Order: sequence, then structure tokens, then C-alpha cells
Amino acid sequence: MFNKEMYSLGSKRSVIRELFEYGKQRAAQYGADSVFDFSLGNPSVAAPDCVNSAIKELVETLDSAALHGYTSAQGDFGVRRTVAEFLNEKYSARYSADNIYMTCGAAAGLAIAIRALCEKGDEFILIAPHFPEYNVFVKAAGGTPITVPFSDDFQIDIESLKNALTPRTKAVIVNSPNNPCGVIYTQKTLAALAEVLSEFEKKFFKPIYIIADEPYRELAYGDADVPFIPSIYADTVLCYSFSKSLSLAGERIGYLAVNPDSQNARDLYLAIMGAGRAMGYVCAPVLFQRVAAKCIAARPKIEEYKVNRDFLYGALSEIGYECVYPDGAFYLFVKAIGSSAEFSEKAKKYGLLIVPADDFAAPGWIRIAYCVDADMIRRSVPLFAQLYNECTQDK
Amino acid sequence: MFNKEMYSLGSKRSVIRELFEYGKQRAAQYGADSVFDFSLGNPSVAAPDCVNSAIKELVETLDSAALHGYTSAQGDFGVRRTVAEFLNEKYSARYSADNIYMTCGAAAGLAIAIRALCEKGDEFILIAPHFPEYNVFVKAAGGTPITVPFSDDFQIDIESLKNALTPRTKAVIVNSPNNPCGVIYTQKTLAALAEVLSEFEKKFFKPIYIIADEPYRELAYGDADVPFIPSIYADTVLCYSFSKSLSLAGERIGYLAVNPDSQNARDLYLAIMGAGRAMGYVCAPVLFQRVAAKCIAARPKIEEYKVNRDFLYGALSEIGYECVYPDGAFYLFVKAIGSSAEFSEKAKKYGLLIVPADDFAAPGWIRIAYCVDADMIRRSVPLFAQLYNECTQDK
Repeated sequence: MFNKEMYSLGSKRSVIRELFEYGKQRAAQYGADSVFDFSLGNPSVAAPDCVNSAIKELVETLDSAALHGYTSAQGDFGVRRTVAEFLNEKYSARYSADNIYMTCGAAAGLAIAIRALCEKGDEFILIAPHFPEYNVFVKAAGGTPITVPFSDDFQIDIESLKNALTPRTKAVIVNSPNNPCGVIYTQKTLAALAEVLSEFEKKFFKPIYIIADEPYRELAYGDADVPFIPSIYADTVLCYSFSKSLSLAGERIGYLAVNPDSQNARDLYLAIMGAGRAMGYVCAPVLFQRVAAKCIAARPKIEEYKVNRDFLYGALSEIGYECVYPDGAFYLFVKAIGSSAEFSEKAKKYGLLIVPADDFAAPGWIRIAYCVDADMIRRSVPLFAQLYNECTQDK
Repeated sequence: MFNKEMYSLGSKRSVIRELFEYGKQRAAQYGADSVFDFSLGNPSVAAPDCVNSAIKELVETLDSAALHGYTSAQGDFGVRRTVAEFLNEKYSARYSADNIYMTCGAAAGLAIAIRALCEKGDEFILIAPHFPEYNVFVKAAGGTPITVPFSDDFQIDIESLKNALTPRTKAVIVNSPNNPCGVIYTQKTLAALAEVLSEFEKKFFKPIYIIADEPYRELAYGDADVPFIPSIYADTVLCYSFSKSLSLAGERIGYLAVNPDSQNARDLYLAIMGAGRAMGYVCAPVLFQRVAAKCIAARPKIEEYKVNRDFLYGALSEIGYECVYPDGAFYLFVKAIGSSAEFSEKAKKYGLLIVPADDFAAPGWIRIAYCVDADMIRRSVPLFAQLYNECTQDK
């Protein structure tokens, strides 16, 4: 009757969204205090002050057509120039406005970039653990996702990745700081990846792109360094979102940046414009294009996330859970006791909404989003202890 | 190298966007006064006051996570309920929040609905003259667009449409008030359409949907009545946008409404959710979801468009142009002198940016968007007269 894949995608929700909806229902039924929702990466830290003041300033100073009317499909020229200049200054890069394509957030950027790159039968390499929607976007574009398993330190397992490359490989999706495990790929890891990909480019006489999915770029704790991938490997498309850096997840604003030094950069940009058009993206939301440009250097108070990370990592480790220490993003990756699905189901009884990581290509693990109220985390600890006891007694 | 269709779509821009970009370049070169940009449907009438006051109120009253965080993929529940109640009260319909899916404008809504409906080989009927992107969205979903030619009065040619129906027909896209010709389909036309489609549903034992693309619903002049299609034909998906009714074209906010009385309504809604997900739509921009709900009954000052319509229709008719009298939307449809492409090219020399309607399945016609400054229209009339003289002397 309808498109089977779309129906199946719509009726079997992403496990994250499923928990998010369950949490809303439980809160309505038993009260908000009975829900410990660690499911969704919805920033808890307020947007930096400049966001709301930029909104007010724009509303008060621009005339209505300039404020709310269409921009070019690729985004307002001034906004794109601001993004390019920001990247150039920060990373000694040489982007121009014409390399930047404003998107409705990172999901749109990824879906568009994949659609632009993908010819029938192309393979896209995903590195476990990874965001589940990569599979959705690759399949929707007619490509085949190939997942490389993770190594013990959650850096990229270069040997496995090398073995996964074929003449049909079109791109590798790299996500650092990583959702779900919070690891940041090191300069060494990325240099090794670049070397392998460059070899294969020469061997197959065709480019292999990195799609660098970087919504968490600004969420790195302490001295953690987040290497800039386009400087390490030229054939990189950057996929950025302001969702986390400006705490604007629902406003849907981000950008794709095609490295001017990448192969066929101009043609890739045109294919991106075509893919955006085919998927109904007319232009990125205009008010937030301008807000993002005005606040491009602003950062949220990531100290709040850091406090949450330190507390939760400490508390769960002390209970006995095996946790990956996160250098960035706002997720704690924890080994499930038993299967992740069963463990997540048991947790629900306590009101703990934690995401089984099977769809992240990491069965046996669960993801805890700590971009939440600090007090909720504190109140959840005894429940995590009870859950631990229940699960270890079962064993 | 890249996806061929996407590259081709990106490198051959829509003719409208091409003119829009040309206009911006010409303005930069010769000054804004030298450009008479009638190319784009970018509302010239300011957003109703409630839009900016709703923005300020929301920014001042909601906390940051509620204001800028994710909503459910289908949109905030309260917003969807407001939309449903508005439709129910105005059209004696019986929508619930669960029939409403908030979208990033009408283009996203169309692309999503078509993707949700389309199985390989399905046919979608377009009625000339029509918005060119319908072709793009249908092809991107793997379907085949079938265009029905227009009749002399620009109502739907029911016989032609009947002849175009096949067992593979999945949907008919109906756009009223019409872009580009400004005609509103009458109750009689739509009843005849409904009768034909109902017959075919019975004959083929399967639903044929109407996708009612209605961004111009509120832009009807004088006493013109815009019939509500779901009341005439149950198997209708409404695709609405606030772009024109609230003058918010760049903010990308609209909705799909699946008629609860349509066949397989719940499953279609799920397929829509799946299609949105596959295409990278996480949720519609959240601030403007709430703004739209707060301003749902607001209307722009369409008197300004009406003044433009009356003046332009009068002036061009007097010069000698053959024009379709528009009852709605903000476009004047004019017979080109010679081929529309040549005519549009000649017009560019005068700085007149008018859209050849070949891509609207109406070769020999051009579209003039009169959602522009009234003074620019007045200043353009002598140029339209010169253009007319040049073209008729050529003949």
C-alpha cells in the first residue's frame, strides 16, 4: 500500500525516540519525579545568553522580509561567509562561503551528504559504536552500510577498517567526540585512518570521502583536543550542528562544509545542493541561520556537563558498573549486565530510561545521556544500585 | 563520481532560483533600482504583528530546554492539537493531534508525503500548470510523474485526468489556489474530480490519494471561496505551510494532516513518520512550531497583494498582454510573446525577472510574482510596455 521501508521505519521507531515517548507517558501518569530520562541528547544546559539576545535584536532591527523570507537554497551569503571565516581562523583552513551549505541540523546534513555521494551499490563504512540513523540514511540513499567493530580502547580499529574497504566504498562516517561512547579520536588514530584511505584512493583511482559528523566538536572536557579532520585528510565533508554547542537542538540549524582542497569539491557541492532540493530542503531556517552566525563563537556552560560526567562516572563505577570514560559529548557508555535490551527493560521498572546500544552496533552496552538535571542524576544513583543488585543476583 | 541525478539537480537549478540569483547579482552590479524581481514567491507583506510578539513572548517566558530543545519527531503535542482544533472548527472536520505531522514547510511536507506513499513504479498525477518541484519530489521517491494538460479556464480537465488514471496511480497532487496561475478550483471541479477518483478506487480496489498542496489557502481575494478538499474527497492528505499566511517563508514551518476518515489513515501517518526520518527531518523548527500555533488564526494584510493584483492585471492587460485573472495566491500568469524562454530572456535586458513556465508544464506562458513592492510594480509598467513593443515588432 505505502512504501514498505518508510512504513517500517515509521512504525518501528528509533529505540531512543521510543524511550523518550515512554518517559513522557510515564511522567504524565506517575509524575515527573518518577522518570529518570537518560534517553535523549537534548541539551540541559541553557543556550548561551547571546542566543536569545540575538533573536530579540534580529526581530527588532530587520524588516519582516529580510527577517523571515527565503534565503538562497544554500543559505544566506553573509552567514556562510561568517562560518567560513570562523573555520579558517580557528583551524587555518581556507573555506569560502561557496563551500558552506547551511542545513536543518546535522541529521539533514548527513542525509543530504550521503544522498549526494551515493550511487546505487555504494558502500558507506560506519565505525562502531555509532549513531543508529547512519544506517537509515545510507539505506534510504540506496547504499549499503558496512560496520567496522570497535576496538578495546574505542579508538578506530584500523586493521578492521582496512579490511572493510572495497572498490565500492564511497565514504567513511567518522563521529568524534563520539556518540554513544564519548571517546575522541586522537591525532594518531586519524592520521592512521588518513593513511589507509589515501592508499586506497591511489589503488582504486577514486576518492573515498570522510563524512565528519561533528555535533559534539565543542563538547570536549578539560584539555581534550579534538583534531580537525579536514587538515588531516583532505577529502572530508564536515557535517556540523549548532544543536549542542548553542543548545538549540529543536531549532534545526547546522552546516555542511566541503573542503576546498578535496577532490571534485565544486561538483560535490553541486550534488549536495541537488540532494537538498530533492529532499524538500528549501533553505535552513532563516532566523536561526542568523542567530548561529551571530553566536558562532559562543559556547554553553559545559562545566555543568563536566560535573555530571564526573559524578555519574564515579558513582556508577563505584557501584560496580563497567563504564567508558568520556572525554567529550554528553553520554556515558556502560556495559549492560546481560543483554542490553533486557537490561534496559529492567531499568524501566525503576524509571531509569537508558538506551540499549544494539542499534549503535554495540550489543551488550547501554548509553546514558547525562545532559540532564544534576539533581535527577543524584536521585538516580540508588536506583542504579538496586538495578545492579537485581541483575547480578539474577546471574 | 557522485549521484548523477543529484548532481544534475544541483547544477541545473530551478529556473526560479536561477532568476533570483541573477537578480541578486544584477542588483549588486547596477543597483537595486535596476532589478524588477518578479521571480520568487517571497512574501512582501510583513508578517502579522503577532508573529514577532509571539517570538518575544516565547523567548521571555519559556526556559531554554522547552524553548529550543527537541520535540517529538511529529511535532509538539500541544501544537499539533491546536492545528487539529483549528481545522475542526473552521471546516467541521475531526482531526486529532495524531493526524498532524509538523513539517519544515510545504516542500518538506510534499517530499515526505510522496516518499511515504510511493512504491517503485507508482504514478503521481500532476495537473498543469503546476509547481516544477513536484516532478523532482516524485522522481526522487522512485515514482513517475504524469502531467495532465490544462483546460481553457485553467480548472481541472476532468476527461484528461480520467484518461491518465491507471492501476499504478498512487496519488493526484492538487494545488489550489494555484501556483502559477492563481486559479481556485471550484466546488464543482473538485466534486467531479472526487467522483472520478472514487470510481477508480472501486474499480482497482485500492485507494488513490489526493495530496492537497495548500500554501495559498488563506490568500483568496474578495469573496473567492477555497473549498476544503478533505470534505469533498476523504482520501486526502493536506499539505499546509505558514510561509505565505504568516509571511514566514524562510522559517520553514508547515504541517501534513492525514484525514482520519481516509483509508489506512494510521498506517499512512506511520509511513509519513518513517519518510521524514529517512530524509533527516528530526522535528520541525521548534520556536516556529509554537509561533505558528499562537498565530494560527492570524492573516497577513492581503489587501496589499490585492492592490498589486488589480493594478498589474489592469496595466498589463491594457498594454495588450493576455493574462489569467487570479482569484488567489500572488502570481499573475501571462501569455508569453514567442517562446517563454526567449521572452523571459528578453525581459531580463529590461531588468524584468519573470519566470518562463515551461517547467510548470505550461510552455508559452510566464509567471509574474506580485508579492513585491507596489512601487516597483508601478515603475515596471513602462518596461513591460517596451518589452511588448519589442516582441510584437519582432513578429
